[in-house]
Amino acid sequence: MDKMQLDKHIYQQYDSELEALQTKLLAMGGIVEQQIKDAVNSIENADSDLAEKVIRIEDDVDLREVALDHDCTTVLACRQPTASDLRLVLAVAKMTRDLERMGDEAQKIAKMAISLNQSGAAPGGYEEVRHMGTLVQNMVHNALDAFARFDAIRAVEVARADKQVDREYKSAMRELMTYMMEDPRSISRAMNILWTLRSLERIGDHTRNIAEHIIFLVKGMDVRHKSVSDIESKVKGD
Amino acid sequence: MDKMQLDKHIYQQYDSELEALQTKLLAMGGIVEQQIKDAVNSIENADSDLAEKVIRIEDDVDLREVALDHDCTTVLACRQPTASDLRLVLAVAKMTRDLERMGDEAQKIAKMAISLNQSGAAPGGYEEVRHMGTLVQNMVHNALDAFARFDAIRAVEVARADKQVDREYKSAMRELMTYMMEDPRSISRAMNILWTLRSLERIGDHTRNIAEHIIFLVKGMDVRHKSVSDIESKVKGD
Repeated sequence: MDKMQLDKHIYQQYDSELEALQTKLLAMGGIVEQQIKDAVNSIENADSDLAEKVIRIEDDVDLREVALDHDCTTVLACRQPTASDLRLVLAVAKMTRDLERMGDEAQKIAKMAISLNQSGAAPGGYEEVRHMGTLVQNMVHNALDAFARFDAIRAVEVARADKQVDREYKSAMRELMTYMMEDPRSISRAMNILWTLRSLERIGDHTRNIAEHIIFLVKGMDVRHKSVSDIESKVKGD
Repeated sequence: MDKMQLDKHIYQQYDSELEALQTKLLAMGGIVEQQIKDAVNSIENADSDLAEKVIRIEDDVDLREVALDHDCTTVLACRQPTASDLRLVLAVAKMTRDLERMGDEAQKIAKMAISLNQSGAAPGGYEEVRHMGTLVQNMVHNALDAFARFDAIRAVEVARADKQVDREYKSAMRELMTYMMEDPRSISRAMNILWTLRSLERIGDHTRNIAEHIIFLVKGMDVRHKSVSDIESKVKGD
């Protein structure tokens, strides 16, 4: 084999390693997306079996996080990537951590579903769970799509959607507090709803982080701790 | 300058870059440690001025996170570290993210202190805040110490302390729920205590993450999602 062919071979292998990182992240993302959907459904439909499934799958998500992070470290050590390749590896390492945390929150929601089922019918707040659940699921879906297409504009939209999730969360919290004060016997069940909404809000935050990692990956800009309008003008003005 | 001298010079600069990452992380850690201490004190002593200070300092912590993460990326791109140097850079990048999140939680506690002050005297739960606050502060202190000394055994102790924080958190939550049911008028104030305890529990989780990063750095083992006794036997058996 002459040197050029050997080089090509090495580069092809390197490229396929980078592609594998993307593919594995998207696969993990798909599992977590389903986990969140199932968790929200398990609350809405009082489905303890589905909740158990969400909890069981968490071990797989944990293993994927550790394996993918290990893959990233190996590529860093063996390929010593620079520029956009380096950004891809770092972004994947960060995103896998956010995805794992999102899976954790889905698991917490599933535990709340089981706890709600055990204590019988639940107080108001289901509509908020459904509503926030839909918003958050859309965010996750769009974030994974933005990553698959390296689409920074779409990532900005994901970051913007998180503002709406935060607003819905605050308004649902206020309603829930009023509810608890009016009917103190419902407090322990209302708390399950409260933790569920909190978990959804946290999933929204992690999804926003993923959006920020995508912008870093595509545009090379660190947009953490910036307002959405700042991020937008930076991304579009680039 | 002959080649050997040039090499030495380059290595010295590289070493000092790695040292700078450690120093900056410890400086950031010191600020966050103080932020947590001040946040807990601002609740205990109903000190809104101190709470405002905690909130103000958050911008500085955010900037440090972005700068330190940028430094890590630069070292990766320019020095292409391997083995323990690579682990140091990756561990610092991860720890800075945890520290920033801990600062966020301290800021949330400070906001609760202000909210509690505005609504007058607060219900039971202060002792739990003080108690959990002390546990968590010790964890943070020991974690930073373990990093400064590259001490994996001490990092295991930090991970173990998080179990105690989790137990205290659960017991304090139960007490708070009973309190709310007995006196529904106290609900909104009790919720401030609840979110404070939650933030302390989250700080404990992030500190445990830092302990795990230290074990990865010193021993090259990924111990995420493992039980403390597993981690201990791995670290000691190494």
